[in-house]
Amino acid sequence: MQDFDLYLPTHIVFGKDKVNELPKLMAPFGKKVLLTYGGGSIKKIGLYDKIKDLLKDAEIFELSGIEPNPKIGSIRQGVKLCKEHNIDVILAVGGGSVLDASKNIAAGAFYDGDPWDLVKDNSKVGKSLPIVTILTLSATGSEYDASGVISNPETQEKLPIFGDFAPRASILDPVYTYTVPKNQTAAGACDIMSHTFEQYLVKNGNMLTDGFCESMLRTVIKYAPIAIKDPQNYEARAALMQASSFGCCGLLNIGRDFSPWPVHGIEHEVSAYTDITHGVGLAIITPRWMRYSLNEITAPRFAQYGVNVWGLDKNLPQLELANKAIEKTEEFFKSLGLPSSFSEIGIDDKHFEDMAKHLCDNWGDLGLALTPLTRDDIVAILRNCL
Amino acid sequence: MQDFDLYLPTHIVFGKDKVNELPKLMAPFGKKVLLTYGGGSIKKIGLYDKIKDLLKDAEIFELSGIEPNPKIGSIRQGVKLCKEHNIDVILAVGGGSVLDASKNIAAGAFYDGDPWDLVKDNSKVGKSLPIVTILTLSATGSEYDASGVISNPETQEKLPIFGDFAPRASILDPVYTYTVPKNQTAAGACDIMSHTFEQYLVKNGNMLTDGFCESMLRTVIKYAPIAIKDPQNYEARAALMQASSFGCCGLLNIGRDFSPWPVHGIEHEVSAYTDITHGVGLAIITPRWMRYSLNEITAPRFAQYGVNVWGLDKNLPQLELANKAIEKTEEFFKSLGLPSSFSEIGIDDKHFEDMAKHLCDNWGDLGLALTPLTRDDIVAILRNCL
Repeated sequence: MQDFDLYLPTHIVFGKDKVNELPKLMAPFGKKVLLTYGGGSIKKIGLYDKIKDLLKDAEIFELSGIEPNPKIGSIRQGVKLCKEHNIDVILAVGGGSVLDASKNIAAGAFYDGDPWDLVKDNSKVGKSLPIVTILTLSATGSEYDASGVISNPETQEKLPIFGDFAPRASILDPVYTYTVPKNQTAAGACDIMSHTFEQYLVKNGNMLTDGFCESMLRTVIKYAPIAIKDPQNYEARAALMQASSFGCCGLLNIGRDFSPWPVHGIEHEVSAYTDITHGVGLAIITPRWMRYSLNEITAPRFAQYGVNVWGLDKNLPQLELANKAIEKTEEFFKSLGLPSSFSEIGIDDKHFEDMAKHLCDNWGDLGLALTPLTRDDIVAILRNCL
Repeated sequence: MQDFDLYLPTHIVFGKDKVNELPKLMAPFGKKVLLTYGGGSIKKIGLYDKIKDLLKDAEIFELSGIEPNPKIGSIRQGVKLCKEHNIDVILAVGGGSVLDASKNIAAGAFYDGDPWDLVKDNSKVGKSLPIVTILTLSATGSEYDASGVISNPETQEKLPIFGDFAPRASILDPVYTYTVPKNQTAAGACDIMSHTFEQYLVKNGNMLTDGFCESMLRTVIKYAPIAIKDPQNYEARAALMQASSFGCCGLLNIGRDFSPWPVHGIEHEVSAYTDITHGVGLAIITPRWMRYSLNEITAPRFAQYGVNVWGLDKNLPQLELANKAIEKTEEFFKSLGLPSSFSEIGIDDKHFEDMAKHLCDNWGDLGLALTPLTRDDIVAILRNCL
């Protein structure tokens, strides 16, 4: 078994109307709050007013308009606000983009230079402002992890940032996800599954966390279609929200081989160039990556996935099981209404070489993926997505 | 899905020789250390000397001789040491007994009265000293939770204590469990399984954490016999140690019906009167509790356990599956060499009525167990254990 560190300092408060615990959860951190959010859906669902009412004793500054694939421009604005107003705590309300941006802002508040420096060189991340979150989209797991992903349109880069800025508390009320549109629900489900695949599909797993990963996948496979068909189904929204939080926190990864998260690496390149929805990119790339990685050595792992997640007959030959499991995955993403090729969403092969080069220069060692990947392999996988 | 809070502030550092990180992990808490341990096995395995060497810049006071089913007398001694020497941090090295005792001591250090008051009335638990642990026995999960169980021989009580004293860090090196004898390894495995059963076997589970629980059980069932046969098998010791930590931390419990942990309640009464090993009591009581709780309403849950953990044929009738699953459980505990009746270990029915009365007066609501239990039911289950 591989060694591991596990540190999950976020207090998760999960359930309907748990927002009422916000004042108690915010109290230890101070009165000067930077409220961060996106395009205003939190106003439509009444959450904005509710927060203002609950925190009427606090001094609230706002950074709104944080975009999907959050851009360094928003982060620079946020950092400026923190420094100008001596902010004590960030309240991030939204999905992964708002939360990820808030992490970069939290670290930027104590950094003298441009916050993009922190993304380019994570070793520069030091002290950070405390963050409390209210989640409105089940997908990225940012509510329960210590990382974010930030885009820089000027340099066409989308890169991860890691630091000691896991949220101090996250309020998870599935009701806030009732208004998430079908396509975003589907993309979020795909993101949760991809986080799991990135850790599950390694050479040497671990019996305990293999089981955790398989339960994650079965849960999303059961509940995502229900949430898409019946957006106000509490059980389904709750199951996805709960699964979201465990995707990236480290729990699924314990005792397993290191994984360089190849599908996320490839997808980040594609959305750095095209700004597509992260989960959509993952839905297209995942089955191609799986097929490209399948061989006699890796077949048993895909076969295990097929048996324990899709209920395939364990007596079938390993390679047949593996192929069927990959087909099931591809069909499932299609059944959620997600695009299944780049051409469907207008992406051509123009930047594939640049993407592959940038990925190999800036990402973890893809030689450590389930099947080792070179720059040429990345280009081949991207071509298979067309 | 049921609401939940999840807060796991312990930093888990897992792997061979991770004790070398001790100075770094202890540094934030101060230089005056109370080192707590049991009967001296930590000296035999060289861990005591290693700690002394690693913490040579600290001022170390010692409380040794903490016994199994830790007694309030040891805790009183520990509290006295903390107060006399203005201890900054407790370093608890051992199994669940040492860790549980240290939690009561940590809270007692800031309490003016007798530390037994804190056990009798958990609302009196306030501020606590920070605790760092080094685990030497895989069983109780105390290394990753915020509770302990303390015995008072004067009153023949064994009761839980809860507080804000989850360890700040726990070092988990499976090698330290190589010398754990077969019977203690077996009892520990049974304890881990029982923690899982107490949360898994409720009326309404949760798809995600059902899967987590089933993976816990399969892992212990696979690796406990290996660890017993081959005590220095790293993989087996590591699998048990990893499973130990998730037993009581709250993870397995999320989104599920409340459980009053009936088997632990009953076992605590038995060991309060007889001082038997906790895991031995659980091995005897668990199958009897399962059989007593089995009926047409609860059969599907036991059947699910049989199919997903023991690999039984899902096409069998539910009641047959349930009975087979319980038989498998009983046979498994026997196969580990654990006693399977009270008479085997010299326990008679003399105190059963008193135990049942004390349990019903002092434990959570057993009316909320999988099958509701009254005082008479407890006596009946105890009689079935003879």
